Amino acid sequence: MALTAEQTEGILQQVRAAKAASRTLAGVDTGRRNEALRAIADALWQRRGEILAANAGDVAAAQAAGEAPSRVDRLLLNERRLEQMMVSLEQLVALPDPVGTVDERWTRPNGLRIERVRVPFGVIAIIYESRPNVTVDAAALALKTGNAVVLRGGREALGSNAALVAAMRAGLMGAGLPEDAVQLVEVTDRDSVDVLIRAKGLVDLAIPRGGAGLIARVVENALVPVIETGVGNCHVYVDRAADLEMAEQIVVNAKVQRPSVCNAAETLLVHRDVAQAFLPRVARALAAKGVELRACPAALAILRQAGIGDTVRVVPAEAADWDTEYLDLILAVRVVDGLEEAIAHIERHGTRHSEAIVTADEAAAARFLAQVDAAAVYHNASTRFTDGFEFGFGAEMGISTQKLHARGPMGLPELTTYKYVVRGTGQVRS
Amino acid sequence: MALTAEQTEGILQQVRAAKAASRTLAGVDTGRRNEALRAIADALWQRRGEILAANAGDVAAAQAAGEAPSRVDRLLLNERRLEQMMVSLEQLVALPDPVGTVDERWTRPNGLRIERVRVPFGVIAIIYESRPNVTVDAAALALKTGNAVVLRGGREALGSNAALVAAMRAGLMGAGLPEDAVQLVEVTDRDSVDVLIRAKGLVDLAIPRGGAGLIARVVENALVPVIETGVGNCHVYVDRAADLEMAEQIVVNAKVQRPSVCNAAETLLVHRDVAQAFLPRVARALAAKGVELRACPAALAILRQAGIGDTVRVVPAEAADWDTEYLDLILAVRVVDGLEEAIAHIERHGTRHSEAIVTADEAAAARFLAQVDAAAVYHNASTRFTDGFEFGFGAEMGISTQKLHARGPMGLPELTTYKYVVRGTGQVRS
Repeated sequence: MALTAEQTEGILQQVRAAKAASRTLAGVDTGRRNEALRAIADALWQRRGEILAANAGDVAAAQAAGEAPSRVDRLLLNERRLEQMMVSLEQLVALPDPVGTVDERWTRPNGLRIERVRVPFGVIAIIYESRPNVTVDAAALALKTGNAVVLRGGREALGSNAALVAAMRAGLMGAGLPEDAVQLVEVTDRDSVDVLIRAKGLVDLAIPRGGAGLIARVVENALVPVIETGVGNCHVYVDRAADLEMAEQIVVNAKVQRPSVCNAAETLLVHRDVAQAFLPRVARALAAKGVELRACPAALAILRQAGIGDTVRVVPAEAADWDTEYLDLILAVRVVDGLEEAIAHIERHGTRHSEAIVTADEAAAARFLAQVDAAAVYHNASTRFTDGFEFGFGAEMGISTQKLHARGPMGLPELTTYKYVVRGTGQVRS
Repeated sequence: MALTAEQTEGILQQVRAAKAASRTLAGVDTGRRNEALRAIADALWQRRGEILAANAGDVAAAQAAGEAPSRVDRLLLNERRLEQMMVSLEQLVALPDPVGTVDERWTRPNGLRIERVRVPFGVIAIIYESRPNVTVDAAALALKTGNAVVLRGGREALGSNAALVAAMRAGLMGAGLPEDAVQLVEVTDRDSVDVLIRAKGLVDLAIPRGGAGLIARVVENALVPVIETGVGNCHVYVDRAADLEMAEQIVVNAKVQRPSVCNAAETLLVHRDVAQAFLPRVARALAAKGVELRACPAALAILRQAGIGDTVRVVPAEAADWDTEYLDLILAVRVVDGLEEAIAHIERHGTRHSEAIVTADEAAAARFLAQVDAAAVYHNASTRFTDGFEFGFGAEMGISTQKLHARGPMGLPELTTYKYVVRGTGQVRS
């Protein structure tokens, strides 16, 4: 359904209001922005009654619509989750602010003094699905770095998001900053996304956070710069020289510790020389966690021979399995002839997110780390560490799977751009 | 005219070949890539006969088609211009290579050692118009930083580009590197651009270099990440507290030193308090260089009163003038009530490229530098300095007018991305 002209204009008005607010926000110092984050935390707590009531409405509607429990849970807010938001806001206040940092400064032979200074983007549009915690997280990260934010969340969370945004706007007002720095697009028709991502000159950056379909749609239609996030078809390669005990722990962790996230492993690659020794043991360990295996013929033969098929669900892999981000307790398994074939498989099927090798062979590790093209490459560690908090950034806006601007976990510096400030004494170019 | 399936497949084959070559290129050290640049310089010189003959064909065709002399001149190669290319290549060899640089390294409490390492993008597509010098410049910058390059130049320069690329490929081969690292798309139908900018997963970055129409088309249709370059509607604001002698020199330089480029000034903004004193003198100085003025009513009145209209071409500005990148000896002139109005005018009409204030008032300068949103902001200097060489980068791929990844002049570091290399001893996430 196309938007009415009035709806489109309404969204553009919100973006323009955000743009105007972004100028004020960029002009105040860190202290003022931190005060606003604290005021937002207070306002969220003061308004918890309204917020939880609105959320209860969303949750009831989702249950009535027969949504899966996992989806309903993602939607759910309660006092504990609100408290977690407040803790996050307080942690964010404590983080250093990149805005105003001088990356470099130098003087040219003609006397021109040049500085490269970190500045906010301006207006960041966040397009996401039905998790109301993203509403507060994303807005807070944007505000901390001097950006205004336009939020376009999913329809199922609209009531919750409206209540959260009302509280955040009240917090901004209370701190003497423009409430228009946080905008919620309440038109949840798909076309409202297009209005945002085509608002060239107004929206400085769009970040889609969600499933592959949402991200593809944004990339396809955007005129404004986009950072792609999240799709992760990640691999663990167990080399001939792997410590098999370590390999087992890493594979199990990468698959089961939180299967629904982008840095979970989706395919296990095993060197032929250790397949016989490794596959049965890892299959049993994975089975204990309820993981289904989709195995290549060689892996299947080894597993069947070891009698694994009787206790673990093992099925033959189909071609599509190598390209599937299951986000579930399913693992594709393939036996490879060696490092070369493992790297080629990842090159062909990976999504440039997180890739791991387990080996005691330093030369093999060095080759894997150098040749595999991904945001994060691991030697003897789980892919699950690709995360702003695990990297020590103290914050995370998402995990970029593109190469432009930001790659991997995006912390606060990645939410800024820079400008060159040049000071002269009348220099002209000859 | 749509491409045939065969033409589309041919271009994709070239991109795939470039992708394969990019892996080799990324794996060799700086020394090998520098050798290749030297071999390319040698090959260009050895094949100067073929190159100049091919170029003579392009030039003759352009003249026969009645192209303007300035366009024909841009197309022209001769021994001197080839020598300049060789000098540029030698300078590029001397520049530090960002690839492999560790931006940061740290160890997490759990013992994970994390490094952020500079790596090439992979395949860069350059889409440009009819300047054959871009062919060698752009390819050399890409190769220096370990990237393969797919060049899509204009139809008018096709013969020259083919000869230049043949020489560069011979140089690569001579240096023992894959010739496929430099590709020329010889299908100059517009749709061939679309094949490149939609080759997601193969082309890692597209850089359009050319006029506003080309850039808009690329941004509109791209699925791969794009860096927008070049459109510059730049302003010089002469403040109440300006040294008028300095202001005159800066305005004249920003307008006339090379009017056809993106960092030339297109609009002069003058504080009302100094308009009477400044406008007649700057108008005379500009007149001496053949500049036509398009003036707002207040400026027009002052200039007419001073009798300037008799000797200088002065016409009333129309609304469109404030948004026009003339790239010619034309300057729009507007009297403003002060700094605030100057900043608002730039916000509304500027293209976020290069903006200058001339003033002795440090507070006014600080406000302008902080509030004007542009890649480069200047105090008491000409906008013409926004240039990789003038900034001291020693190289330039173009001038970015977007905020994502690179802003302003792009040197070698801006042609790289990074990856996180994480080394562990069996760490898993709990």
